[in-house]
Amino acid sequence: MDLKIAVLPGDGIGPEIIEQAIKAIDATCKKYGHTVGYTYGSVGATAIDKTGNPYPEETHRICMQSDAVLFGAIGDPRFDNNPQAKVRPEQGLLEMRKKLGLYANLRPVSTFKSLVHRSPLRQELVEGADFICIRELTGGIYFGQPQGRSEDGQTAFDSCVYTKAEIKRICRLGFEYAMKRRNKLTVVDKANVLATSRLWRETVQEMAPAYPQVNVEYMFVDNAAMKLIQQPKHFDVIVTENMFGDILTDEASVITGSLGLLPSASIGIHTSLFEPIHGSYPQAAGKNVANPLATILSAAMMFEYAFNLKAAGASIRQAVDRSVEAGIVTEDIAEDGQAYPTSEVGDFIAKNIG
Amino acid sequence: MDLKIAVLPGDGIGPEIIEQAIKAIDATCKKYGHTVGYTYGSVGATAIDKTGNPYPEETHRICMQSDAVLFGAIGDPRFDNNPQAKVRPEQGLLEMRKKLGLYANLRPVSTFKSLVHRSPLRQELVEGADFICIRELTGGIYFGQPQGRSEDGQTAFDSCVYTKAEIKRICRLGFEYAMKRRNKLTVVDKANVLATSRLWRETVQEMAPAYPQVNVEYMFVDNAAMKLIQQPKHFDVIVTENMFGDILTDEASVITGSLGLLPSASIGIHTSLFEPIHGSYPQAAGKNVANPLATILSAAMMFEYAFNLKAAGASIRQAVDRSVEAGIVTEDIAEDGQAYPTSEVGDFIAKNIG
Ligand SMILES: CC(C)[C@H](C(=O)O)[C@@H](O)C(=O)O
Ligand SMILES: CC(C)[C@H](C(=O)O)[C@@H](O)C(=O)O
Repeated sequence: MDLKIAVLPGDGIGPEIIEQAIKAIDATCKKYGHTVGYTYGSVGATAIDKTGNPYPEETHRICMQSDAVLFGAIGDPRFDNNPQAKVRPEQGLLEMRKKLGLYANLRPVSTFKSLVHRSPLRQELVEGADFICIRELTGGIYFGQPQGRSEDGQTAFDSCVYTKAEIKRICRLGFEYAMKRRNKLTVVDKANVLATSRLWRETVQEMAPAYPQVNVEYMFVDNAAMKLIQQPKHFDVIVTENMFGDILTDEASVITGSLGLLPSASIGIHTSLFEPIHGSYPQAAGKNVANPLATILSAAMMFEYAFNLKAAGASIRQAVDRSVEAGIVTEDIAEDGQAYPTSEVGDFIAKNIG
Repeated sequence: MDLKIAVLPGDGIGPEIIEQAIKAIDATCKKYGHTVGYTYGSVGATAIDKTGNPYPEETHRICMQSDAVLFGAIGDPRFDNNPQAKVRPEQGLLEMRKKLGLYANLRPVSTFKSLVHRSPLRQELVEGADFICIRELTGGIYFGQPQGRSEDGQTAFDSCVYTKAEIKRICRLGFEYAMKRRNKLTVVDKANVLATSRLWRETVQEMAPAYPQVNVEYMFVDNAAMKLIQQPKHFDVIVTENMFGDILTDEASVITGSLGLLPSASIGIHTSLFEPIHGSYPQAAGKNVANPLATILSAAMMFEYAFNLKAAGASIRQAVDRSVEAGIVTEDIAEDGQAYPTSEVGDFIAKNIG
């Protein structure tokens, strides 16, 4: 196969972790006889500095012409405490999601045996936890209009809007994943308060009869926030709207102690995008200490989801497992101060794939 | 003093746990020479069944004429999976909050030494955790207009609205609590996405110079959802908007393993209201097994916050500590199957106060 990948390193540690994922992709393509071409684009604070625009037209063009997008991270503390900044890095991310139609963010949460003891939760609660969060990514309060300020500046407003079509599209994925897994779908909403949540619940109730194998459960978001901690093994597939998904997927990402290893995929209309769950971690940028494993595992998801090359994806995963087992890992998950630099972890994995 | 308390038992286990709190209040008043009068009102599913209205006018009148409201819980599974139900118990709760002007929900989270081992988190992470969440309770997406459906029923919408005045009122409480505690205030928002959050952040930035002792920190809600689990001891006072507060306070409530013991206070314009954090727990209703301690501790908060009777509040707290230490507790926190019925726990505490 001939793979065309758009590469957006972004801000902070983005460039250095992306570099390691590229090594892994190269090694995988070599092993399985695929050719691959990369086109780099800028996004986030980096793009603002270069062009004034956090998601430049040129970057969008590159993404649209690609089979898949490999994304690092965005975010820069220079913009965080300046509520009046007219342009912010995150706008680039949101615009990209919208323009590429990346409507579903998939985050598998699994446990690495050798890392379970790093979980903030008691070991017996997380051991074996294995679920996937499906977050709606192009609707809800992130994009609803109107959004802004009253003329006198004393009132601000945001709008949460969902159409039945948007809800069906994402929940269909939820049902399908449940059928590929353990047939359990948890729909998280706040139907006791929000009109949009009531439309979610109604829509899922209409869809459910078409998936008789799937056991559907409705859970309020506050309850879900508790249950994720109290009983993470309760979950198989979680589907939820954009804002709730933002909060719950981040909460879910820390329970297994493997935050630095969690990848994600965003399924889209025009292309799909793969990125680590963790952020741009500006304090570590340029120090060659950031953990590249989540990005490398995102590349594995890319092979599996975007190119349907399961063996290729699996060989990346195996190499990651080996590096974790062998302790060839960065400081965040290293034992006894035995940490390796970002680039060496990347090298180890590429060599192991080959 | 002559105390006038409105009592709203509500649904599920509400009536039985309220009964125990009343015993504790009676004992406290007897001990300290106060007289007390209770007026009962109905609310929630119970009120719908009686009057068709989850917050009847009569109940509102009772609350308005009281010095404080003691509240059990509401919620009934009959209404949960019926998104089209015209009247829902939760509407009563929201209407009550709005009409009584209960703008600030305060939830202290602390650890009970003898219960730390029940926390889903590793003991060393939670031991000594001690913070308070202040949730805005009468604004945001819970009450914003417009809310509803498009004419064709295909689109639903909710509105999140905040005025600067609302933000100031609640954040002032945040600063004041921080000054009474460890001088640290964490403002949780999503200023990288929401216009309302940017107004929050801007408003707090304007207020901060008036509280030079207070160390203000801004945290995105997704990040806060992680940090609460990873490092609960990081927090002192958290202030946030209604929806984020709903999610984060519930998340916070399970980390110490003392969910059944956590009280809350809602500070209002017309009166104030005290209720346990846990819900109506319908499966346990009428079985005399529900844990009354959170409700009893809510009564302690009532003495302290509404009546400014600190010693009275403290004597209730001491009695609760004693019951926990002595193991005179309900099945949810009992060791080795040595569980006591709800009513006996209530009796023990009343006797200990006296
Ligand atoms: C940076 C921010 C806009 C973004 C979001 O809220 O979606 C991030 O938190 C994420 O989850 O990818
Ligand atoms: C029952 C529901 C409307 C309510 C809320 O969301 O505020 C509850 O979850 C709470 O936190 O008191």
